[in-house]
Order: sequence, then structure tokens, then C-alpha cells
Amino acid sequence: MNAKKYTLTVTCPDKSGLIASITNSIASSKGNILNLAQHTATDISMFFCRVDFAPEEGFEVENFKSLMEKNAGEFGMVWHLFDWAKKSRMALLVSKTSHCLYEVLLKHQDGQLHCEIPIVISNHPDLCAIATDFHIPFFKVDPEKGKAACEADILNLLKEYSVDVVCLARYMQILSPEFTRKWENRIINIHHGFLPAFKGAKPYHQAWHKGVKIIGATAHFANEDLDQGPIIYQDVVRINDTKSIEEFVLMGKDVERKVLVEGLKRYLNHNIFLHEGRTFIIE
Amino acid sequence: MNAKKYTLTVTCPDKSGLIASITNSIASSKGNILNLAQHTATDISMFFCRVDFAPEEGFEVENFKSLMEKNAGEFGMVWHLFDWAKKSRMALLVSKTSHCLYEVLLKHQDGQLHCEIPIVISNHPDLCAIATDFHIPFFKVDPEKGKAACEADILNLLKEYSVDVVCLARYMQILSPEFTRKWENRIINIHHGFLPAFKGAKPYHQAWHKGVKIIGATAHFANEDLDQGPIIYQDVVRINDTKSIEEFVLMGKDVERKVLVEGLKRYLNHNIFLHEGRTFIIE
Amino acid sequence: MNAKKYTLTVTCPDKSGLIASITNSIASSKGNILNLAQHTATDISMFFCRVDFAPEEGFEVENFKSLMEKNAGEFGMVWHLFDWAKKSRMALLVSKTSHCLYEVLLKHQDGQLHCEIPIVISNHPDLCAIATDFHIPFFKVDPEKGKAACEADILNLLKEYSVDVVCLARYMQILSPEFTRKWENRIINIHHGFLPAFKGAKPYHQAWHKGVKIIGATAHFANEDLDQGPIIYQDVVRINDTKSIEEFVLMGKDVERKVLVEGLKRYLNHNIFLHEGRTFIIE
Amino acid sequence: MNAKKYTLTVTCPDKSGLIASITNSIASSKGNILNLAQHTATDISMFFCRVDFAPEEGFEVENFKSLMEKNAGEFGMVWHLFDWAKKSRMALLVSKTSHCLYEVLLKHQDGQLHCEIPIVISNHPDLCAIATDFHIPFFKVDPEKGKAACEADILNLLKEYSVDVVCLARYMQILSPEFTRKWENRIINIHHGFLPAFKGAKPYHQAWHKGVKIIGATAHFANEDLDQGPIIYQDVVRINDTKSIEEFVLMGKDVERKVLVEGLKRYLNHNIFLHEGRTFIIE
Repeated sequence: MNAKKYTLTVTCPDKSGLIASITNSIASSKGNILNLAQHTATDISMFFCRVDFAPEEGFEVENFKSLMEKNAGEFGMVWHLFDWAKKSRMALLVSKTSHCLYEVLLKHQDGQLHCEIPIVISNHPDLCAIATDFHIPFFKVDPEKGKAACEADILNLLKEYSVDVVCLARYMQILSPEFTRKWENRIINIHHGFLPAFKGAKPYHQAWHKGVKIIGATAHFANEDLDQGPIIYQDVVRINDTKSIEEFVLMGKDVERKVLVEGLKRYLNHNIFLHEGRTFIIE
Repeated sequence: MNAKKYTLTVTCPDKSGLIASITNSIASSKGNILNLAQHTATDISMFFCRVDFAPEEGFEVENFKSLMEKNAGEFGMVWHLFDWAKKSRMALLVSKTSHCLYEVLLKHQDGQLHCEIPIVISNHPDLCAIATDFHIPFFKVDPEKGKAACEADILNLLKEYSVDVVCLARYMQILSPEFTRKWENRIINIHHGFLPAFKGAKPYHQAWHKGVKIIGATAHFANEDLDQGPIIYQDVVRINDTKSIEEFVLMGKDVERKVLVEGLKRYLNHNIFLHEGRTFIIE
Repeated sequence: MNAKKYTLTVTCPDKSGLIASITNSIASSKGNILNLAQHTATDISMFFCRVDFAPEEGFEVENFKSLMEKNAGEFGMVWHLFDWAKKSRMALLVSKTSHCLYEVLLKHQDGQLHCEIPIVISNHPDLCAIATDFHIPFFKVDPEKGKAACEADILNLLKEYSVDVVCLARYMQILSPEFTRKWENRIINIHHGFLPAFKGAKPYHQAWHKGVKIIGATAHFANEDLDQGPIIYQDVVRINDTKSIEEFVLMGKDVERKVLVEGLKRYLNHNIFLHEGRTFIIE
Repeated sequence: MNAKKYTLTVTCPDKSGLIASITNSIASSKGNILNLAQHTATDISMFFCRVDFAPEEGFEVENFKSLMEKNAGEFGMVWHLFDWAKKSRMALLVSKTSHCLYEVLLKHQDGQLHCEIPIVISNHPDLCAIATDFHIPFFKVDPEKGKAACEADILNLLKEYSVDVVCLARYMQILSPEFTRKWENRIINIHHGFLPAFKGAKPYHQAWHKGVKIIGATAHFANEDLDQGPIIYQDVVRINDTKSIEEFVLMGKDVERKVLVEGLKRYLNHNIFLHEGRTFIIE
């Protein structure tokens, strides 16, 4: 992880010669490809490519960018270049429940999340001690000021702390459409899930009363369409019929924390391609 | 499996002394308990109990039944007694797709489904050869006669062949409410499932366009509320984003056949308790 | 969990009338059965039964015990009675790795482990701050004194803190046969596992070089036969061939912490029956 | 699947410029890359690359091969080119157990296995009717002639039917080292597996007596080192402690058939890279 590394992601309509043009641009700029994963979604004729490469002697990032600009013009590419020396700065938004917060902080401490966590923001004071134990500043915003004022405070904090991405680690307040639009595709949320799905309040209660045998969770980008944003990661756990509603909830928490971290990993490692409202995870 | 065996299932509101009254009735009738599983759903204060027992010398089934009648009166029990010497007779309804039919017939041949399969009924001729290979009579009903006439033919066949339970092994015709009411809780269907769910046509296409990462299937009792009957068994498979819609469909078929057979096993082994529209599977 | 509750476990050779004798003893002592799970292992003709019951007015524990003594004499029963008002006291033994320690402490905090954790013992100072964050005394023993002296210190601590059960949460020191014999079936260990297994040093390295596709972990009772004691719980994770050895190790840690906690739950909830060197988990 | 397609696989020590040299050779030969997956195993500094490409107008396979020869010389590449118009011819070797044979034939019929199955060979007559139902010639060899003569008959059949790869679909006879050497890395076997592993006879009995909670299966290349050849695919199923030995065996059969087919798919789709006795599956 110490060596200099870039990740390039490219999305465009499928055509002949795409990979050659990309790999040639890297090679001629003195980049050494470490890893290349590519997928053509034949159902929609779209091409997705993710390349890790190391700069060798003589590599000039501006030079490479201008080559990619030429490719982009020719092939209609949407592309991004990520420099691994620059870590994303991720804010955690929490409320009263600690399981997701703990999991993110522990995995971060363990070196499994490639980011900085400069701030924890909450609308409740309860989890302050946990953030402090991990030496991260904790800010409590005040929901009683009204949603607009409260969100303005959050937006200011995100700006002040140069935040790149927001993780809703069980933040139990619905964000306004203005907020989610402003941070589109940069807010990652975790949401319970079932087979089949349940709408409305007390989903674990509904699922229990329906005799659901499998419960799960979905990490997704938050958008206006509540809990329906593009899916990043999902997992499930089998649950037997001797479990109580309370046990449903506990098992759900375990899936949630796991799925959230897996979703964050894919975001922070630049594995997520977004196209027409769905993700393609290229690993 | 050769020795004589009964299974007793009991459902009632939770009270003190239920298990003692049941086990005493068995013991005093000269039954030897082989297996007892019991669950109290504390969320709804309901008691479910499933007992396998072997009749010993002097056991009289009518004597036992009258003891159970007394218990039922005292405790408000709903109870059923199944004699394992009498196999259920299960009809298979199919259309054009073979994967579920094959799986049921192979598992039956392997001794894993405790039933007889006296008949395969279809609204298409395609799968006739498979039924014949397994030496099971195949009847084709004619959907062009209209749903009512066609269902009347099916009902006659079910009667003629003394069928106890119907398995919809990918039967692609919606049954009328009259039919499902007549055979309530005796029709087992298999249905695709996703996390989250999708309504309407071409669900695998919808799921693909939503970027779903997990697909599944649900075995359930068919009722008027199409594909929403009480859930018997569910399973899922993880699917990665390089899969095409066609591959979604193939993976779905694999989960469907597995889940259908698991659902049938639970039905035929008398593991299913129905209460207020949900199942409790007691194993 | 507040109401008074007992759990009774019974193991004996299979015979007719076992359940009736047990349930009658409970009923006649004024106990109300909440939950009964029973399994007869037909391959070895052994009977296992686990009963949760609530004492009602007039219940006398000594009276019940004497009834069970009579049953035990008649049927050759081995039985235990657990009073849920009395929590087991569990010591955690750790070394330098924190993932299992954190998981146990968090699940305990979350109310999922029915025990007290009066002490954390380590042969290294590294994890002291974590124990302290959770307000649990931390003791460092000194391996340089030699194994016998060091284990004597541990045994004294276990005695002083009235410990009932020991959890090896990645304690990287082999316990002597004297120690494991003294605490037989009361030490729970977590051990990596693979399909197939590997002996010797650096198992993750071996597994990687063999191209293993599935890695797992086993929670088991520690005995003289290192890592071969009776199995309590197992789980696995699929691993693809693009993972490095380092990633093998990280994924292994995730499985380990999960399996350890699941193993502890089964111990603390009295679900484990031991017979001829294997466990039967009755849930 | 109808369009013309090639798959190229390349293995070599990791160096700079590998992907560019490969993709340039394809592009300059008028090949259109459909799919490229590449992995560098950093632990051993080895590079693996799998490319699907379609020949466009002017593509000459001999021309492409000579470019690859040049690359191979420069970089020390081991490479293979597979033409999807040419299906592998796979022989099935069976004995008395039908579950794997059925699964392979059904998946083949379903179009999920890219091969021809020209012959089923057995040392027992039992499964003849199944092969015949699927219109595949069935040959019974005679183990009473002695292993050498019997294997000579098999080798002749493989030659006569132009077989490329052999699938041991529960063939219960140990192949001689001469046989496995002659067909090295072209015999795919299925083998039960446990966590941990068991050696010797009656493994399911051993696993049951050890209280194993997870059983599995491994598809692997057969070599002299019985059941220890390079691993292709593995899967497991959780098994609870109320299962009998007989049920262990039935559940094991289900895992075996699934794992065997998954292993075959990876072989027939050219996803398997072999290096120093282990596989890398690149999908």
C-alpha cells in the first residue's frame, strides 16, 4: 500500500479497441498496470473498466490526463483518476444505535477502510464516548432547530472538515431532497431488507408476522427516493421460526454492520460504477 | 422408516401444563415418544408442539384420539395426527419448464420425499417424456377450453387420483380464487424472490436493471393473494454484477428447484404449523 | 429475561417414557414448561433433552431435585439444573490480537451473552486499554516466569474472581494438559479452519498455496489434544483467488470473531450436550 | 454463443507492459476484446490473464499466434488459445451412484456446460438406463479383468471417442498413477470434505462421531496423491446435530453434485490457471 498507485475507472458505450486505447495510454505515459478488471454488460452494450497502475520513472499525471481526454473524446468515455496517496475524508452520521459506528471504527482501525474519518456527527448525544475513545471529534446537531437549520449545520461541518463522502451509520433522520441532491452518490446508507420486502413502520415486526425466513440488509447510495437508491452491497442471514421479534432485530443489526462496511470498502476502493441508476461493482 | 410411527401436531394458546398433558396422553395410550419439538411464540403467546411417537403393544389409536379430544376441549387445542404408514398423494402441475419437475422426481426417487406421486398434470405437452421416464401418468389439460373448464378437468383428475396435496412445479397459469380456496393450504408454489422485491412482469429483468446483488426463491402456500401466501421456505444466492440477465434467470432456476424441494420436505414431514396467515416451521 | 427461569438438561440411553417422566416431575413440582427440545440420536440410541421452565407458586427447587434424582436412578440420566438468576462468570484470556476481545465485549454490552465478565487476563500488555474502556479489570501474567508459574497465576486469578468458564479470545500460548484437564469442558477456544485442514505453522500461508476456496473457524472446548476438542460451532466464508495471503488472514479474523461469539452463546444458554467426545447442540 | 469467439489465457512472471503487449497483439490482429480479467498474485509475483475476444474482418489466427509467440519469448509467457467453435469432448466415468451423473446430464441439456458428452463409462451396469435416456452411449468395463486391463479398456475408449477431458462423476475405483499422469490436469474429480478433514474409510461416519457442523465437497484435478490434486471449486452446507449419519450422507450428495458442476463450468469456460500445484480461478 506504500508504493504510489493510481486507479482509473472508465465507463462508455461498448466499441472495439477500448482496452487497447486505455492500456496504451497508460503504457506510453510510463504507467505499469497492476490490475485490470473489465466488464461489458452485453444487455445494454456498456463497457466498464477499472485499472490499478503504478507510475514509473518519467510518469507525468498531466500528460496521462491529456491522453485520456483524447480517448474520452473519441469513445465517449466517462473517466475518473484516483490517486491512492490522497485518502477520502468520510464523515459518520449517527443517532443512538452503536453497532454500525463501532464496526466502521474498528475496521478503520484495522486498516481495512482506505479513508480518514475526521468527524462524527449526531442528532443525539448518546454515542459521544465511543467517538472520543477512538479520538475522533464528535458534534451534536440540534433537530429541534428544524430540519433546514439542522441540515445547514451539518453541511457547514462537512465543508469545514473537507468531507468527501458521508456514511449514514444508522442516522435516524430523513435527509431532505436538497441535501441528498447536493451530495448525490456521495452518501452511503444502510437499510434492512427482507425476502420479500416490507414498506412502512416496524419492518421487523411485519416480517415476523409474515413468517419471513431470511432477513438481510442493503448498503446503497441515499437519494430522494428513500431507501431506493442504487444498491452497493447486500447480504442476508437465515432465521428460524423459533426466534422472537426481538431476536429478529438483533440478527438484523449483525447483518447491517457487516453490509455497511462491505459497501464502504467498495466505495473507498473505487469498485463502484454508476450507470442509469444502477451500480456495477467491478472487483 | 419401516417401524410404525405417528406424528402429532398441536397448536393452542400458551398455558401451563400443555406438554405434560400431551406427553401423558401419549404415555398412557402406550405410545413411545421418539422426538418432541415445541415452541412458544412469546410475541403472540401461542404454543406449537410436534411429537413423533411409536405405538407400543396395546396402543389403540381411537383411545389416544379420545384422550386428545379431552385435552383439546380443556386447552383449546387444534391438533392433527398423521400415520406415517399412509403416504400423502401429491400431484405435480407443470407447464414447459423442466428444472423443478426433474428435481422433485429425482429427490422422490432418492427417498427424500415421503409421498406418492400418482400423476403429473400439465397445460402443455412438452414435459410428457420426463414423467413417462419416471413411470408416472401424464395428463394434458387444455387451456383453450377456458380457465373454468380447464380447472374443472384438473379438479376431476385430483379427485380421481385421490390427491392430497398439489405441487405447482412451475405451472404457469394463474389458478382461480375458487380453486385456491377449495385447496387452501394444500397447494405449494415456488416463486422467485429478490432483495428487495419486484412486482410485475419480467422480474429478473427488473432486478438486473436495479443492480440487485442477491436473488432468491420462496416456497409458499398458494392463495388468492397471488404469490403472497404463507411462506414455507426461502433461500438465496449471491450474484455478481458481471452476470447477464440470462444468467440471472439460470441462477434463479437453481435456487427455485432447491427451495421447492425443501418446502415439500417440510410439508410432507409435518413440520408446518399455520397460524394467522403465517407458518411456524418446527423441525 | 427478568422472570425466574430454570433450564434442565438430561442425557441418557434412549428408553420409553423418558419425556413423560421429566415433564411430570416438572409439572408435579409446580414448574411451567416454557420450552422443550429433545433429540434422540438413533445412531447411538442416546436421548438428549433440554427444558426451560418457570417456577410457579409452590415450586421448591429441592423438591424438584429429589424427583429428578429418582428419575436419574431409574433411567441412568445425567442431568443438570441451571438457574438463570445466576449468571456464569467468564474470564477472557487474550494476547495481542483485539478482534475477538472487542467482539465478545460488544456482544456482552449488547445483552447477547448471558454472563458476567469479571476479568481479562493476558500474557501481553497490548489490549489493556480496551478492557479498561469497558470497565473490566485487566491482569497481565508473565510468560517469562515459565509456563508452570504463569499458569499458576492464572489459576489463582480464576479462583479469586470465582470464574466458571474461560474463553480463549486468541490467547496465543498453549495451555498445559494439567490446566486443560482441571478446566475440562469449561475452556472455549477459537481456531481457524479450512477445507481441507492444514497442520503446522502459518496455516493461512499453507491454505493460500494450496488454492483453498473456503476458509472457516471452529469454536471448541480446549483439551489436551490441541485444537481437536469437541466442536461447538463452525462457520465459513468463501474466498476468491484474487485475494492475497494478507487478505486471507483478515477474512479469517472476521469469521473467527463471529464463530467465537456464537459458540459462547450456545454455552451460556445451556445448549451444549457432551457425549463421548462430541457435542450435540440442542436449540 | 453463436458468434465466433476465442479465449486467450496467459501465465507469466509479473513484469511491466504485459497487458499492453497482449491487448496490442489482439488489436493489431483485428480481434475485438469482449472481456479481460487479469490478476497479479503479489505473494508470488505471478501474472494471470484471461481474454475473450471476437475476430473481426481480416483476423488470421496464425498471424495472431505468431505475435503471441513473440510475446511469449520476450516475457516468458505460457499461453493457450481456445476456439469456442470447438467444444471439448468430456467422458463421464461413473459407478453405481446416480446423483452426479444426473446433475451433469441435466445441466448439459440446459446449455450450461460448454462441451459434448460422447460417452459414459462405468465399472457397473446400474446407471445404463440414465445414459440411454439422454441418448449417450454407455460402456461397461470389467474390473474383474484387473486394474491394468480395465484401465487399458478405458484408455482405448477415450481415444476412440476423441475425449479431451474426463469427469469422475462418483467413479468408485482408484485410478493408477500411470493413468492420472497420462491425463494430468484433464481428470476432474469430486470429493467430500469436512471442517476439519477426515482420512480413511466412512468419512461421513467419522464426521458425525466428531460432531462436525459443516460438510462440504471439493472439485479437483485427480492426481497420484489421492484426493489431493489442485482444488477447482468448493462449497459447504451447514448441518445441525439432530441429523443422523444417513442424513449426513444425503446432504453430502447434494453438495457434491452442485460442486462438481461448478467445477466443470470453470474448466469448460477456461477459467482455471494452474501454477505450482494450485489453481487460480479467474472469472
